[in-house]
Amino acid sequence: MSNPKTPRVALFLANGCEEIEALTTPDILYRAGIPCDIVSITNDVRVTSSHKITVIADKTIGELDFDAYDMIILPGGVPGTPNLEACDLLTAHIREFAANGKYVAAICAAPSILAHMGLLTGRTATCNPCVDEDLVKAGVNLLHEPVVQDGNIITSRGMGTAIAFGLKILEVLKDKTAADTMADKILYSTITG
Amino acid sequence: MSNPKTPRVALFLANGCEEIEALTTPDILYRAGIPCDIVSITNDVRVTSSHKITVIADKTIGELDFDAYDMIILPGGVPGTPNLEACDLLTAHIREFAANGKYVAAICAAPSILAHMGLLTGRTATCNPCVDEDLVKAGVNLLHEPVVQDGNIITSRGMGTAIAFGLKILEVLKDKTAADTMADKILYSTITG
Repeated sequence: MSNPKTPRVALFLANGCEEIEALTTPDILYRAGIPCDIVSITNDVRVTSSHKITVIADKTIGELDFDAYDMIILPGGVPGTPNLEACDLLTAHIREFAANGKYVAAICAAPSILAHMGLLTGRTATCNPCVDEDLVKAGVNLLHEPVVQDGNIITSRGMGTAIAFGLKILEVLKDKTAADTMADKILYSTITG
Repeated sequence: MSNPKTPRVALFLANGCEEIEALTTPDILYRAGIPCDIVSITNDVRVTSSHKITVIADKTIGELDFDAYDMIILPGGVPGTPNLEACDLLTAHIREFAANGKYVAAICAAPSILAHMGLLTGRTATCNPCVDEDLVKAGVNLLHEPVVQDGNIITSRGMGTAIAFGLKILEVLKDKTAADTMADKILYSTITG
C-alpha cells in the first residue's frame, strides 16, 4: 500500500449493482475512520441498484485521481457487474492496481471481471456460484469460503458475506484487532458465534 | 395481516439512519417479490444516513396511505432513531398498527421508540446494547438474541443482525421455507452454518 497510515479506498457503483454488497464496506470503513469514496462509473452521481434503490455517489469516475487511492472495491449485482466490466477507464486502473501491488477487492459476480482480465489466473479466490465457471475457466484455485485473500486480491461471495468482506478489508487496511472489535460493535459476532 | 396474499411494507428513513439496517430488508423483500416502499419522514425524498450515504426514497410520509400497508419497519442509527421518534405522524401510525395487530419491526436503537411508547411493556424483545436500559425501564423481557418476534412485534440488534432481521420478516410475511431458501441464495447460510 502506498500510504499505510491513511489508506484511501474507492468503491465503484454501476447501475444494477447490488446495494448491500456495495454499501456494507463503506459503512464499516466509515465507522473505522477510513475514507471510502463511492464513485459512479457514469457522469451522473445518481446510481440505481438492481433492486431499484437510488444512491447518490460522492463523485464520478471522470473526477477521480486514481493515484490517490490504495484500494479499488467492486460490488456485484446484475447488470452492475457487466456494467463495471464494460468501463474501460475502470478496468485499465484495476489492471494497474493489481500489477502495482495495490489492493483490488471484488464480491459476488464481480470477481469474474478479474478472472476475465487474467488477474486471477493461478491465484486463489472465491465468487458467487453464478460465476464459478468463469473463474474455473480462467485457471483460478476456487475456494468456497466467505472471503479469500490472495496477496493484494480480496474476493467474496454475495450479499450474505458482505459483512465478512468488509471486515476482511478493514483487517487488511488496519489490523485483525480492529476487525474483531468492529465485528463485536456491530453485533456481527452474535451471528457468527 | 390485513391482506396475507400481497403484503405491503413501509420502511421509514430519517436523516441519520443506519443505511445497512435500513436497506437490507428491502433488498431481501425485493428478491422475494414483496413490495417494500422506502419512505422519507420529511418532505424531501433525499435522506442522508449516519455514515453520509444519500439515498432517494420512493415517497415521502405525507404521500403515504398507511391503511394500504401491513407492516412498518424502523431502522436504527443516530440521530436517525430520535428523528423517527420525533415524527408524530409516524408514531401515531405505529401505535395504530401495534393495536390493530399489524406488524411493527424495529432494529438497533429503534426498539427504544416502541419501548418509550409503552408498546413493549410486558412483552419480549431485543435491541442494540446502547438502549438496553430503555427497554428494561419500560418493563420489557429483554433477550440478547439476533432477532425476537413477540406476536406482531419484531425486534433486532444492529447492522450485524440486519440480514437475520430481514429473513425473519420474510418468514413472517411468507414462510420459513422462503426465508431458508433466501438465506441459501444470498450465501448467508455459509456464514451461519
